[in-house]
Amino acid sequence: MTKIEQAYAPIGVFDSGVGGLTVAREIMRQLPNERIVYFGDTARVPYGNKSKETIIRFSRQIIRFLKAKGVKALVVACNTASALALEEIQPKLDLPIIGVLKPGAKAAAEATKNGKIGVIATEGTIASQLYTKVIQTHAPRAQVFGKACPLFVSLVEEGWSNDPVTLQVAHRYLEPLTESGIDTLILGCTHYPLLTGIIRQVTGDKVTLINPAYETTRGLHKMLKEHGLLNDGAYLPEGDVHQFYVSDAADKFKKLANYILPYDIDTTQLIHIEEY
Amino acid sequence: MTKIEQAYAPIGVFDSGVGGLTVAREIMRQLPNERIVYFGDTARVPYGNKSKETIIRFSRQIIRFLKAKGVKALVVACNTASALALEEIQPKLDLPIIGVLKPGAKAAAEATKNGKIGVIATEGTIASQLYTKVIQTHAPRAQVFGKACPLFVSLVEEGWSNDPVTLQVAHRYLEPLTESGIDTLILGCTHYPLLTGIIRQVTGDKVTLINPAYETTRGLHKMLKEHGLLNDGAYLPEGDVHQFYVSDAADKFKKLANYILPYDIDTTQLIHIEEY
Repeated sequence: MTKIEQAYAPIGVFDSGVGGLTVAREIMRQLPNERIVYFGDTARVPYGNKSKETIIRFSRQIIRFLKAKGVKALVVACNTASALALEEIQPKLDLPIIGVLKPGAKAAAEATKNGKIGVIATEGTIASQLYTKVIQTHAPRAQVFGKACPLFVSLVEEGWSNDPVTLQVAHRYLEPLTESGIDTLILGCTHYPLLTGIIRQVTGDKVTLINPAYETTRGLHKMLKEHGLLNDGAYLPEGDVHQFYVSDAADKFKKLANYILPYDIDTTQLIHIEEY
Repeated sequence: MTKIEQAYAPIGVFDSGVGGLTVAREIMRQLPNERIVYFGDTARVPYGNKSKETIIRFSRQIIRFLKAKGVKALVVACNTASALALEEIQPKLDLPIIGVLKPGAKAAAEATKNGKIGVIATEGTIASQLYTKVIQTHAPRAQVFGKACPLFVSLVEEGWSNDPVTLQVAHRYLEPLTESGIDTLILGCTHYPLLTGIIRQVTGDKVTLINPAYETTRGLHKMLKEHGLLNDGAYLPEGDVHQFYVSDAADKFKKLANYILPYDIDTTQLIHIEEY
């Protein structure tokens, strides 16, 4: 494959489920010439409460699947996989790869004025302490306050994104952070941007909310450019521009997917990821 | 293997995670001569929001694993797998098998006085309508009111089993059932008996709560007897009486397991279930 042909290859994007479509949506917006092959591991979702060893194993299977689809680069759209698996996987990989964690951490380090940054994420991401480490490489004196918010994903998936119960849970989770005086908060799980309204009610307007999807796509743009892999738009593929794969095709996930993406993804294909 | 040797073989018990240990605990209590090989699919938990096809595939892998461990009978300790996979799997199986759904449904049909029965369970179990079908084979005129309570599992796993937020969620989920005039309520998910206190606060004392673990163990006893597979206690195996396997060994699951079982299960072994 020549370099030019390679630039027309799609980008592989994966997540534990459909939450990572918030990242895919951002790529479609910022990089409209790029094609996406998306994989959501809906048969094994969630990743947030599982061990590092398991998340590495799952991520390796998914990357083998996406490579078989001929992708030119990889985006780990899942915070937990970015925190637990990316460092382990990257050294032996022959494709450029970017996770959502480092771009979000860097943006927070740049945004904070008082050096106090909050991170909300899954238990796995918080336990890894990787957000703290990366923030402190950019802002060595920053104080980072992490808080696992495991109920947030369930509340979004229950359709209670704008519900008094969710507001009460948000108060419980976020008040220790606001009391610490944070001026910046990283929404460190793909579902959390869907709770921006509720989170904003607790933090008030003075806390900057960082959505890693936006920063990651900027980082992806830069990475593709550096590797000469940016699609210039001269080549239009036949058929569907984007491809969506899941490991479980329950209606529930389709509904959430259609809620996140601006079009119907009824053409989602089911695969058995453990065979990869 | 002679019939007597076979009776000394262990019973295979499986669940999507560690919640099914409530069933294992009941077996240990009612059938103290029996040994258990327990498998909790903690790498792929939860099952409740996944499709029938996926749950059947996962259950088949687990049964292959348990058969390799030489079990004499199987207990599906997961309501979702009992609802979505058992009917499909049973006909081709060469071992006696029992799920938690039918014994719980039968007990409810026997307990109700006014013929109005509530069922709380996962989305998968409720959507299958199997509780309704089985209840109506025992009590044809019974009215069954099903309600999926997906947040309950997350709330238990967050450690909020006795929390005002959980009480509020319980009111939201259960009030449509109590308003329907139910006098019997099936706790149709292994985690729910851990919320009995909260559920009781909403339903009051006049609603009979059915815990399928108890009824299932009575059914297991009968099934083993009929097949001549009951252990008479004459043979004492060397080493550990019970064996515990999981597909992910995160600390979170160990903690919940030790909370359910009366002893420390630090000897839990990790296996890769997708290889079976």
